[in-house]
Order: sequence, then C-alpha cells, then structure tokens
Amino acid sequence: MKIHQRNLPRVVIIGGGFGGLEAAKALRKTDVRVTLLDRQNHHLFQPLLYQVATAALSPADIAEPLRHVLRKQENIEVIMTIVERIDPVAKKVLTSDGEVGYDFLIVAAGARHSYFGHPEWEQFAPGLKSLEDAVEIRRRMLLAFEIAEKTTDDAVRKAAMSFVVIGAGPTGVEMAGAIAEIARVTLVRDFRHIDPSQARVILLDAASRALPTFAPDLSESAQEQLVAIGVNLRLQAAVEQVSADGVTLKGGEFIEAQTIIWAAGNAASSLGASLGVPVDRQGRVIIGADLTIPGHREVMVIGDLAHFELEDGTLLPGVSPVAMQQGRHAAANISAMILEGRPKPFVYSDKGMMATIGRHSAVADVGFLRFSGYPAWLAWLFVHLIFLVGFRNKLMVLFSWAYAYVFYGRGARLITKSARQSSDF
Amino acid sequence: MKIHQRNLPRVVIIGGGFGGLEAAKALRKTDVRVTLLDRQNHHLFQPLLYQVATAALSPADIAEPLRHVLRKQENIEVIMTIVERIDPVAKKVLTSDGEVGYDFLIVAAGARHSYFGHPEWEQFAPGLKSLEDAVEIRRRMLLAFEIAEKTTDDAVRKAAMSFVVIGAGPTGVEMAGAIAEIARVTLVRDFRHIDPSQARVILLDAASRALPTFAPDLSESAQEQLVAIGVNLRLQAAVEQVSADGVTLKGGEFIEAQTIIWAAGNAASSLGASLGVPVDRQGRVIIGADLTIPGHREVMVIGDLAHFELEDGTLLPGVSPVAMQQGRHAAANISAMILEGRPKPFVYSDKGMMATIGRHSAVADVGFLRFSGYPAWLAWLFVHLIFLVGFRNKLMVLFSWAYAYVFYGRGARLITKSARQSSDF
Repeated sequence: MKIHQRNLPRVVIIGGGFGGLEAAKALRKTDVRVTLLDRQNHHLFQPLLYQVATAALSPADIAEPLRHVLRKQENIEVIMTIVERIDPVAKKVLTSDGEVGYDFLIVAAGARHSYFGHPEWEQFAPGLKSLEDAVEIRRRMLLAFEIAEKTTDDAVRKAAMSFVVIGAGPTGVEMAGAIAEIARVTLVRDFRHIDPSQARVILLDAASRALPTFAPDLSESAQEQLVAIGVNLRLQAAVEQVSADGVTLKGGEFIEAQTIIWAAGNAASSLGASLGVPVDRQGRVIIGADLTIPGHREVMVIGDLAHFELEDGTLLPGVSPVAMQQGRHAAANISAMILEGRPKPFVYSDKGMMATIGRHSAVADVGFLRFSGYPAWLAWLFVHLIFLVGFRNKLMVLFSWAYAYVFYGRGARLITKSARQSSDF
Repeated sequence: MKIHQRNLPRVVIIGGGFGGLEAAKALRKTDVRVTLLDRQNHHLFQPLLYQVATAALSPADIAEPLRHVLRKQENIEVIMTIVERIDPVAKKVLTSDGEVGYDFLIVAAGARHSYFGHPEWEQFAPGLKSLEDAVEIRRRMLLAFEIAEKTTDDAVRKAAMSFVVIGAGPTGVEMAGAIAEIARVTLVRDFRHIDPSQARVILLDAASRALPTFAPDLSESAQEQLVAIGVNLRLQAAVEQVSADGVTLKGGEFIEAQTIIWAAGNAASSLGASLGVPVDRQGRVIIGADLTIPGHREVMVIGDLAHFELEDGTLLPGVSPVAMQQGRHAAANISAMILEGRPKPFVYSDKGMMATIGRHSAVADVGFLRFSGYPAWLAWLFVHLIFLVGFRNKLMVLFSWAYAYVFYGRGARLITKSARQSSDF
C-alpha cells in the first residue's frame, strides 16, 4: 500500500466535506501519501440535511463513511480525530490523538452557524449543520405536535403549533416549506384533538426579500410559492432576542413559538485563526489567487473556511460547487508543485444555484436560464441525486422520494431521546 | 370522532409494543374509547433492533409512529407521555401529564435489561431495547475500529478489536454473528493499518449451550454456525465483573475488550409493582388465566410484564407472539365484559421460534419441524418481513437486505455523537 511508502510527500487534508473529499479523490494518481482527518467518520451531503430534519430521509441516506468512499484509493488513510490547531511554521497539525506532520496541507474545516454574538440562543434555536443537529430539530418539531395534542391549555397549544425559522436563505426556505407540508399534508389524519394544518410556520428575515443571493424575480417567485403552501413570510423582520418561549423582533413584537430553527449566519471554523494569517469578520481565511495563505505556498484553504475574492471584489459564496472546484484545484496545484511546477490561480466556473420549496416547487438559476415551479423542482431532484455520494444512498433517496411523492408520507417520523432525558417508562 | 363520545367505556393501554398495539387494533370495532399511552412516539420492531445496532438498517426502517399506524381507527387516541404509577383502586393511571381514568386497563409496559443487581455495569455494557440503545452500540462498535486504526499502541489496538457479547440467547447470538460478519466481510477493505478480520468476537454464556430455550440439536447447530463465521463461543462462562476495560469471569479470567454488549437478563417495568399485587423475582405481575390481576377483573397485564403460568407449571416466554396473542385476547375479553359476558381463559398457540446467525444461517423450530442453515434463514427473513409494521418499512428493509446480500454492504455505518461529546472541530 502506497500509504506506507514513507519517502513520498505527505498531504494532510483537514475535513471530509465537499472540498476535502474532492481534493482527496483528485490526488488518487499523484505520488503522495494522503491523510484525511475528520472528527466524523462520514461525509455528509449537507444540501439534503433539511430532509433529515423534516423526517423525509434517514441520517444514513445522506451520509457515507469516508473510509468506505475512499477504500479503493491506496494512497490515502482516513483518521477520525479532532484537529485542535495548526502550526504552519513547524508544518504540523495538532490533533487530540497527537501530531501529524505534512509537506502540503489543505484546510477544509468548514463553518458552523453563528448567532451574531449570542451563543446562548443556540439552545433555543438549533441550527442545521450536522446529523445530530438534524435529528434534534426533527425531535423538537415532532414533539411539538405531541405536546399540542395532549395539552388542555390553549396558550400551550398555540405555542406548540408555532414554528419559527430564522433566515430566509436556501436552508430557511427549504425548512419552512417542508414544515408547512408536514403540517398540512403528512400529519393531517394522525391527531384527534388538534388539526395540524392549523400550525403556523413563520419564516423571518431581516432582508427585504427571500433568497437574497438569487435574482430578484426568483426571490419573488419563491415568496409566492412559500405563501401558497401556507408559510407566513415576514421580511425586514430583524431578530432582537431568542428565548425558550419565542422570538422578539426589533421594534418589540414578540412571536410566541416552542420550536425555533436557526438558518441565519455562519462562522468559519476556529482553525482558520490558528494559522496566524488575516481572517475576515466571519473568521474566514483570506487566501490568494492560488488558494494559499500568505508566506506558505504549501498551505491551502478551501470551501466555507476560505475568503476568496474575485477581481471585481465580490466574494465566492459558501456553497458546495465552490468547495468542490477548489478541492480539485488545490490537488492539481499540489501535483504541479511536486513536479517543480508553479501553482495556478483558481478560476470559478459558476454552474448556478437552486432552492426547493415544499412538495414540487423550486427556483433555479443556471446562468443562461432562470426558472421556477415544477421544472425547477425536477432539476433540483436530478442534480441532488447525481451529486449524492454513494450508489446505495442514491437508490435509497430515490426510493424514499418516490414513496413520499406517491403516498404523501415521511418515513422517518421518529422522536428519539437526547441523552439528557430520562428513559424510564 | 368516537373518541369524543364521553359516555362510552374508556380503555387505557399502557405501552405500544407488540402486545399493546395488537390490543389497540383488536378494539377497533368495539364501542369503547381507547387511549394508548407510550413514552415513545413509535412502535418498535424489536426483533430487528440488532440490525440497527450493527449498521444494517436505519432506525426509521424498524419503527413506525404509533399514531400513524392507528390513524384510521377513529375510537383511539395516542398520547406520548411517561406513566408513573397505576392506582387500581381509584381506576386511574398517573402520568407526567396528569391523571387518566379508565374503565378497563391493559398494562403492556414490557421489560428493560437487568444487570443482576449490578446497574453500574450498564455504562460499560449497554443492552439492546430501544433505538437509542441500538445507535449507542453501533457508535461504540464502529468507533472501536477507528481507534484501532489510529493507535500505535498494540495493547490499545487489541482491546479495541475485541468485542464481548454477554448472553447467548437469540439477541446475543444475532449480535455476535453480525459483528463477526462486519469485521470479516464489510470492513475488510476500509482500513490501512489494521485487518478488521482479525477482530475477536467473544460470546459468553453461563449456560452449557447457546440458545438454551431451543431444542438441543438446534443449539448445537447454532454453535457450529457461530464458530464457522468466526465467533469465539465461551459456554459455562459466568460473568463476575464488568468494567471499562473488559469482563472478569467467575474463576478469575479477565477478557480485555473495549466494546461490551449486554444481552443477558431482563427485568420487568417497575409499573408492575405499582399495581400492589404479587410479582415474581423479575418483577413480572402474576396474572390469572384470563390475564387479569387478583381482585381487579378490569385490569389485564400482558407481554413481557406478565407472569403467565401454564397448567404444567411452565412459564410463557417473553417473546412477541405471546404478547400479540395476549393483546388480542385482552381486547376480546373487554368486548365480552362490556356485553355482560365473562372473560375467557387465555390459550397460547405456539408457532415456534427462530434465531439468525450471520449472513445466511439461522435455526428454526416450528413445532412439527426443526431446521437450520439456509432454509431457516429464508424462513427467518420471510417471517420478519411479514410481521414488520408498515408497508414502507417492509419495502425499505427488503431493499436494504437485498442490497446488503448482493454487495456485502451495511449502509448505516454512522458514528453519531452522544450528547456528552464535544462537537467542535
């Protein structure tokens, strides 16, 4: 196995998300030893995470063990560990299991949600980045209907049947649409004392339109589709305070809700700061045209952790196509440098973006064409199935979607306990 | 909806397992209001729980929301709550959400594992009763291979690659067989520094044969099949002590192992004791021929919580067919009593039992016929698919099994964090 040939240059990749995994795969024919470090054992297909949070898919449908994805690639080893710090001078990564030296380093550690300086809001309004997050949101959402069903207190019932999603970017729009669909379609016959279709789903954003990174006409289309499926869209509604009982808007209005979901704002991994080079306000590492950090051509930062500015001053967004292309580019530059070549500047090829809204609506912008509604939804399905990692996952997800489409069902409606709760009957 | 007709007799069922769910279904045409109480929102198909623990199936594949299963049955309401106590004199069930009065009560609260007076062993050797248990065991098992891969300490690696299953009943046999199969087949290409097929899987039992409730020739067949797939079967090996590092046997031998699974011994739900009538040593309520408790013909106890003695003095085992038949019988007796009839004695119709061992072996005893190997495995597959609740679940499980059979894969190899662990990169 190539991994044991100690004389080959060693490439360490931190993070097995879209960027890190693409980089690892792209190095398969390069004469290097690759070590992929991740705190999870699996690659996660984040674009479908909201479907786990809303009980349409199971965690295993959208995740694949990293070492299984890469099992045929002999020059790679996968280590499940927590990376604590990077020492670019000593060329070492410090992990909870000891040091790992490198000749080349690709940092693809991604981002978590940011609560704009209010980390205490997280307990009331979980965000959606990991499988654990998704299962926790699913638990809260389903539990809210259970509480509404059994209470005799009207105020408790009203709060239990109110769902607030903060942030009307793609994740927020997808979450709000899916919750509205669950309440109005999936659960409609399951209860005796409440009518789930009376649930309020409130989508808040401080901006003046939903999906602000999309073209204005697509925002408008998305807004119409959201309203049509019963989402109460509140724009120019900035959040002042989040508590266990609900959300207070700037201006003083209080929205009572038991279930609050955070889909606004990201903060880059703190590993970026440990590199000792300039970062932006969100903690992203400001990288050069060739994806490297100042003074270290052997260290590349990619994906959501990277601050990459185009010539016109705009910033590349934190989306999977950027991360994947940067991952492949970083791998190509490493291969070039090993052969004494020079690293090339990264050029982003924008393939467009899309977001889905409920059962068969979506918006899509593929550059030369902008469309919405049913055709956009079909395009969304197709693209997500294609890029989902793992043949089995593709089959399972396709099957689950087909089943849900025909029977209006959501198969993963499980409330599983968090460790805090008691388990006695 | 019938549930609102307050003048009808009220039947309360505690527990939505095999017994409680069958009772609820069997009451669908009876003029009663039924209230089903469960601390979980789902019915769990426990016979396949070990497949979740060993990453073959996802939690959602073997569980179905109770209110969804019963959505078309208008005379029933499902309440997710924790039952704390029963007051048979006042005819009330006390829950964490208040009191529920009843005219008839079916107690089907089941059992948890018992550690023979050593509850402190549970942290080191989790048992397998709930979806949370299964996900925790899956996490420990997969994490053990990750630790073995990254350590440089031979002793740590050996302990990480040692798996002890305590108890060689059906669950223990199925777990040990599945772990051996994972190590020898599924994971074999995924690692660089270890050979997963070198894992030790040790199955312990204090008895002199595996599957002691089966006929001796089937035990022998099971033992041969276990050894053939690489399980180290240790009979007449009683456990003296369980610790974080391993298991000490009576006699002093210490077996070092990082992953220990408890499949020995059950204890009935503590609700049985709250009835104030005699219970046996395992806490099971000693019931009469008509399933009722002494002095209360309106209170029936069924399933794993019931101690039901046949005329020859033998005890009915804690298996799903007993619970299901008792559930239907309790429902029929309630219907009879409402019509001023008399409750009939319960007669168990024994359809046999089976256990599976790895990829395509099993043992089956259907009374007139005992068989093992491949035919028994096919019979096992068929019976479990038929009884699995939910059409979607049947399809998903069939699909997962077919996929696993063709590709030797296990699709749910996810390590998801318990709430104790840190989540920062």
